Amino acid sequence: MNPETLEQLNAAIRDIPDFPKEGIVFKDITPLLLQPEVFKLAIRELIQTVDGQKIDKIIGIDARGFIFGAVVAHEMGVGFIPVRKIGKLPHLTESISYSLEYGEAEIEVHRDAISPGDRVLIVDDLLATGGTAAATIQLVKRLGGHLVAASFLIELTFLNGRDILGEDVTVHSLLSY
Amino acid sequence: MNPETLEQLNAAIRDIPDFPKEGIVFKDITPLLLQPEVFKLAIRELIQTVDGQKIDKIIGIDARGFIFGAVVAHEMGVGFIPVRKIGKLPHLTESISYSLEYGEAEIEVHRDAISPGDRVLIVDDLLATGGTAAATIQLVKRLGGHLVAASFLIELTFLNGRDILGEDVTVHSLLSY
Repeated sequence: MNPETLEQLNAAIRDIPDFPKEGIVFKDITPLLLQPEVFKLAIRELIQTVDGQKIDKIIGIDARGFIFGAVVAHEMGVGFIPVRKIGKLPHLTESISYSLEYGEAEIEVHRDAISPGDRVLIVDDLLATGGTAAATIQLVKRLGGHLVAASFLIELTFLNGRDILGEDVTVHSLLSY
Repeated sequence: MNPETLEQLNAAIRDIPDFPKEGIVFKDITPLLLQPEVFKLAIRELIQTVDGQKIDKIIGIDARGFIFGAVVAHEMGVGFIPVRKIGKLPHLTESISYSLEYGEAEIEVHRDAISPGDRVLIVDDLLATGGTAAATIQLVKRLGGHLVAASFLIELTFLNGRDILGEDVTVHSLLSY
C-alpha cells in the first residue's frame, strides 16, 4: 500500500477511549464508512491482499464483517458467506464454540455454503484477540474448504491474535496498531 | 423490473419451514448471496428503486441489512451508516426502543452520522412487521435527515409492515410474498 493510501485509511479511523469498557481504546470504523472515497480505497486494498489468487467465496463475520466482506465479494464477483452468531441461520449449520475473555461464544455457518475444495477468503474489519477468526477458520476446515487467507482492515498487534490463527494461515491487515 | 430478473431473484430465495419457530416460513437469502450474478442483479434493482434521485447516505440495519446496504452505498459512491442493536456503537448515539411480538428491542445510530438535510435511503433485506424499519425512520427524523425511501429486497405483505412506516414514507420492495 502506498503511504498516501495508508494515511487516508488511518485518518478515517476514530479512537474512542474507554469503550466498551475502561482502559480499552476502541477503533471506530464508522467515519471511514461515511467517506465513500476512503471506503473504496479500503475495499481495493483488501482485494489487493489476495491479488492474482483464485478465490471462490468470501466469508464475512457477523456483523461488521458483513460490511466489508459483502462489498469485497460483490467487487470480485464471487459468492458471499455470512458466518453468524448462533441461532440466526435457518438451514443446516456447522457450529463451533470458543472462549472469550469472560464466558463463551458460538458461531455457525450453513453447511452447504462451502463445498470441499472451495478457495475461501475471510474478510473482517478487526483482528483483535483472534477468537472469532480462529473459530471461523475451523468451520472452513471442517467443511473441507481451502483457506487462502484472512484479511483484516485493522489488526491490534499487541493482542497477538495472529498467533492463534494457526501457522498455516496467511494473515493480512491493512492497518496495524 | 423485467420478469426474467424477478424470476432469477425469486429462484435464489429459499423457503425454510418452521424457522425461527413452528408455523413460520423463513425466507433465506443466503443462496442469493452465493450467486454473484444474482446478487449483482439485486443490488442493481435496489439502486434502481431511487433512480435519478439524489442520495447522500445509505442506512443498513444490523445485521443482514449491512450486506445489502454497504454494497449499495459502495456502488452509488455515497456514505454508509450502520444502525445497530444497542451497545455496539462506540460514539454518541441516538437510540430508540420499540415493541416486538414478545418484549422490546432497542437500536441506535451515531448522532454525527446524519446531518440535518441529509437525503437518506434505508436498505434492508426484509420488511416483515416493520418494527425495526419504523424505529430507524424515527432515528433519521430525530437527526434531521430527509428520508428519500426505504428499499427492501423482500416484503412479507401479509404482515402489513408497510402500514406502520408512515404515510409519508416511500417504500420499495423487489420481491413480495
